[in-house]
Amino acid sequence: MRARHKPWAEDYLKEHANIVVLDPIRYKGKWSALFGNDRPIHVEIGAGKGQFITGMAKQHPEINFIAIEVVKSIIVSAVDKVVEEQPGNVRLINFDAKDLREIFADEEVSRIYLNFSDPWPKTKHAKRRLTYPSFLAQYQQVLKTDGALIFKTDNQGLFEYSLISFSEFGMVLDELSLDLHQLDDPLNVMTEYEFKFSEKGQRIYRVAAHFIEK
Amino acid sequence: MRARHKPWAEDYLKEHANIVVLDPIRYKGKWSALFGNDRPIHVEIGAGKGQFITGMAKQHPEINFIAIEVVKSIIVSAVDKVVEEQPGNVRLINFDAKDLREIFADEEVSRIYLNFSDPWPKTKHAKRRLTYPSFLAQYQQVLKTDGALIFKTDNQGLFEYSLISFSEFGMVLDELSLDLHQLDDPLNVMTEYEFKFSEKGQRIYRVAAHFIEK
Repeated sequence: MRARHKPWAEDYLKEHANIVVLDPIRYKGKWSALFGNDRPIHVEIGAGKGQFITGMAKQHPEINFIAIEVVKSIIVSAVDKVVEEQPGNVRLINFDAKDLREIFADEEVSRIYLNFSDPWPKTKHAKRRLTYPSFLAQYQQVLKTDGALIFKTDNQGLFEYSLISFSEFGMVLDELSLDLHQLDDPLNVMTEYEFKFSEKGQRIYRVAAHFIEK
Repeated sequence: MRARHKPWAEDYLKEHANIVVLDPIRYKGKWSALFGNDRPIHVEIGAGKGQFITGMAKQHPEINFIAIEVVKSIIVSAVDKVVEEQPGNVRLINFDAKDLREIFADEEVSRIYLNFSDPWPKTKHAKRRLTYPSFLAQYQQVLKTDGALIFKTDNQGLFEYSLISFSEFGMVLDELSLDLHQLDDPLNVMTEYEFKFSEKGQRIYRVAAHFIEK
């Protein structure tokens, strides 16, 4: 997601330290203590403007949500969203997902969501795709044994690539939809992108999968 | 595929014993001898009226093709097609694919094609789908280690089911297209169904996959 540079973003995040965890590495293995309860932890990687995580948090008060977004000038919008909607069970992290193991202990996470991740269509950029094997290896490590990876996108090429990548990694698919909005799932929480693309009649793809061994 | 009952079909197949192998069980492990050469053997299961297998045979004289179709009143059309086009490298079998191991020895086949297989949409009929685990186990046994299963369909539900079934079976995807005709693959040979559905603008899905261990 592109956004105008916002020089004030860093200070803005610091002013919202009740929502934004500024030193996430400190909480590795201790996220339940931060939330003050033992509820399952669901993580969104690439949270954008926070519409998905906020919607999910309101729908699922029994879950703790952590949203990761690497771009400062975008995560500030997610801060605004959380301030506005006031779900108590969301924390935001401005962090690069390639170092996921620095902020989560083994099996600390119950579910990982990837939504409309950057497709990086050029083959030479394949390593940056959030479903590239090096990322899958991190997800596998931080996810619980019965945890799941749930991935949604409108990008056909990225979805095809990801299903192949999952199969090469030995992952097992639990659910698959090649036209999500045809299902009319009342529990589906839309992202900003999803709303825009599905309005245009574009297909949304979704897959839920799990890892089989470590 | 439904077809009017043709009481003359059985005799018709017998009259074309040069194309139709009437006693396929006898050739288990001996198909290369029947063809008179050691070329790779590719099998289509559910050959319908034979358009795909005939087109493939002409495009690939270096391969021996065997087309299996369980419905007598349909396979007669495939006979006509082969008589008309005269590819020397095709044989037809009127047989039920659930007993595939009765007609092929272990690792006798290099490639299996499933094209527009019956979707059997009701859950209670899932066992009849050609991508149900009991069928996959047969394909795995008769395919060579470096063999492949290639599956094409316009049916979204069957395709979703099949990708999940493949992943549960530990299969690895080699190629995946969620909109085959967008690719404009010059080597794609269309079936009767495929032509009809893609003319209507419907998406065609294709996957190529292999088994990892026996």
